[in-house]
Amino acid sequence: MCGGIGSRFWPYSRQDKPKQFIDFFGTGRSLLQMTFDRIVSIVDPANIIIVTNAQYTSLIREQLPELAPDQILQEPARRNTAPCIAWATYHILARDPEASILVTPSDHLITREREFEQSILRGFEFIESHDALLTLGIRPTRPETGYGYIQIGKEVEAGINKVKTFTEKPDRSLAEVFVESGEFFWNSGMFLWKGKAIKEALERYASDITRIFDAGKMLFATEAENEFVSTNFPACMSISIDYAVMEKADNVYVECVEFGWNDLGTWSTLYDNSPRNRDGNVTQNCRVLAYSSKGNIFAVPDDKLVVVDGLQDYIIADSGDVLLICPKSEEQRIKLMVNDVKEKYGDKYL
Amino acid sequence: MCGGIGSRFWPYSRQDKPKQFIDFFGTGRSLLQMTFDRIVSIVDPANIIIVTNAQYTSLIREQLPELAPDQILQEPARRNTAPCIAWATYHILARDPEASILVTPSDHLITREREFEQSILRGFEFIESHDALLTLGIRPTRPETGYGYIQIGKEVEAGINKVKTFTEKPDRSLAEVFVESGEFFWNSGMFLWKGKAIKEALERYASDITRIFDAGKMLFATEAENEFVSTNFPACMSISIDYAVMEKADNVYVECVEFGWNDLGTWSTLYDNSPRNRDGNVTQNCRVLAYSSKGNIFAVPDDKLVVVDGLQDYIIADSGDVLLICPKSEEQRIKLMVNDVKEKYGDKYL
Repeated sequence: MCGGIGSRFWPYSRQDKPKQFIDFFGTGRSLLQMTFDRIVSIVDPANIIIVTNAQYTSLIREQLPELAPDQILQEPARRNTAPCIAWATYHILARDPEASILVTPSDHLITREREFEQSILRGFEFIESHDALLTLGIRPTRPETGYGYIQIGKEVEAGINKVKTFTEKPDRSLAEVFVESGEFFWNSGMFLWKGKAIKEALERYASDITRIFDAGKMLFATEAENEFVSTNFPACMSISIDYAVMEKADNVYVECVEFGWNDLGTWSTLYDNSPRNRDGNVTQNCRVLAYSSKGNIFAVPDDKLVVVDGLQDYIIADSGDVLLICPKSEEQRIKLMVNDVKEKYGDKYL
Repeated sequence: MCGGIGSRFWPYSRQDKPKQFIDFFGTGRSLLQMTFDRIVSIVDPANIIIVTNAQYTSLIREQLPELAPDQILQEPARRNTAPCIAWATYHILARDPEASILVTPSDHLITREREFEQSILRGFEFIESHDALLTLGIRPTRPETGYGYIQIGKEVEAGINKVKTFTEKPDRSLAEVFVESGEFFWNSGMFLWKGKAIKEALERYASDITRIFDAGKMLFATEAENEFVSTNFPACMSISIDYAVMEKADNVYVECVEFGWNDLGTWSTLYDNSPRNRDGNVTQNCRVLAYSSKGNIFAVPDDKLVVVDGLQDYIIADSGDVLLICPKSEEQRIKLMVNDVKEKYGDKYL
């Protein structure tokens, strides 16, 4: 899944080059490329399907020249994850009715690749032998209030449990209870299932969506697929797979994993999880001279020099034609600021 | 005089494009161009001589295409104002032994052009009939601690006085006494004199410099001038005209003027003298969305958007590859920061 616009990281993440396409850590590989690298050791590259917004197709071809054109599904409109997953499911099943599927965002960080690989292989094993929708739950390492949590139920195999409940982002004290209990895991947005299993679940819980795709069911994985989807996809309602299916289905399981995961969802979680300089700032790969300044996170173009004096706990993000300076504690206001920018200047700076 | 590097405004002012070449107020004209515009109503454009560092010649030709090549004197090295003025004096006297000269920096702001014009014409009148070195003293409007002051002596004509003393930058309480007394005027660095008068004064008080120029006295305003100066100018000591001549000569007068002058010497004086937005920030011509932020001064490229939250009394200056964020109260540290930058990265960001 590679169609998001990453607005919480504006202006570092921009509409024409969102977060997943950025070399976030200065390693020479974007988050999308890192995701691809992580998966090719598990999945035949020819079987990797990228669902994206049509406007990012050329960026994807540039960053992943290994892909054939028909491995990129181009959404004509943004409709959240349920329609995205539904389309990919119809496409994959048309190619292989017995396919097992790993669904993953393209803009998360995973630091322990071997544990990731083992978890995925273990999950595939489970879904091959169970009629299961399997979600990956991350063992929490802190009382994070920015994530959804999954409460685990009965263990059915080592490390795999029935899901008891999905919960929204908790407040701080509730998050502390969650972490302490050992029963709650972070909802990673990564899933494993048989194509057949998710299609059945979509038909049962999201028939508004499957009805749209069923109208062209003979066209998937043919030359007519794109035209059909271009015309009909926008009619899908915009809804997440969690809300449309996972919170309703009764065959939902969670694999409890630990592999150094971070969804890179907010500046503060990025700051909290990044190595700090001696002076207490996170500078990623940029050049910063800091005087009487700590607790800041900097994201500016390579080769740009930032000289900062007397600044504590700020986000400093520069994307060439936009500079944002904002206290980390106020980062939830960034979305409102982006709205103000849009109102005042149109799309120019988004 | 157009050879300065404007380091106090780093990084807005850069070694390869200092302050005088910048369109400071977004009017479409740089400070140099504004200075030129102000003077052509008084002086025949063919008689305007620009003394600059050789590295800025192409910038000057670009900004002032009206000038003939021989109107630009290219210093091969930086030696402060006395050698600069000495060279121009020798050059001008070779063209016209009776010349009257206005010496002016190219990077000051003057808002009341008619008063400026009248003051200059009045000054020319005075030096035509007196053996005088005339400096322009600005009637102070606030107890500025960043300027040198001139104490006036006896009035010799309306608005023109003998100079009693030159004083260095005073502290705050002394500056208040100065302003209250009515006897002290800001030293503007603008001068009017006959070429002959300043040459005599230089010969008397700065003979180390005139001796160097005298060795080639037949060469000024000939094709051999440039080569002679290239070779010999670097041997001049680096010294200001104030220190070398004005503080020593006994025929020094001051014309007391008021024409909306600002030397644009520091961010704080620029802030204090610029119109503020409704939100209390000085944004010049740049696009700023400010939240819970006031007292800041922004200098960023045209067309760049700055979104700022929770920042009080800062300088935010962006020059493409350098971003500076510094409290206004700490601006005297900028020079030290520039040193650190130089030590760490060489000339790249200067």
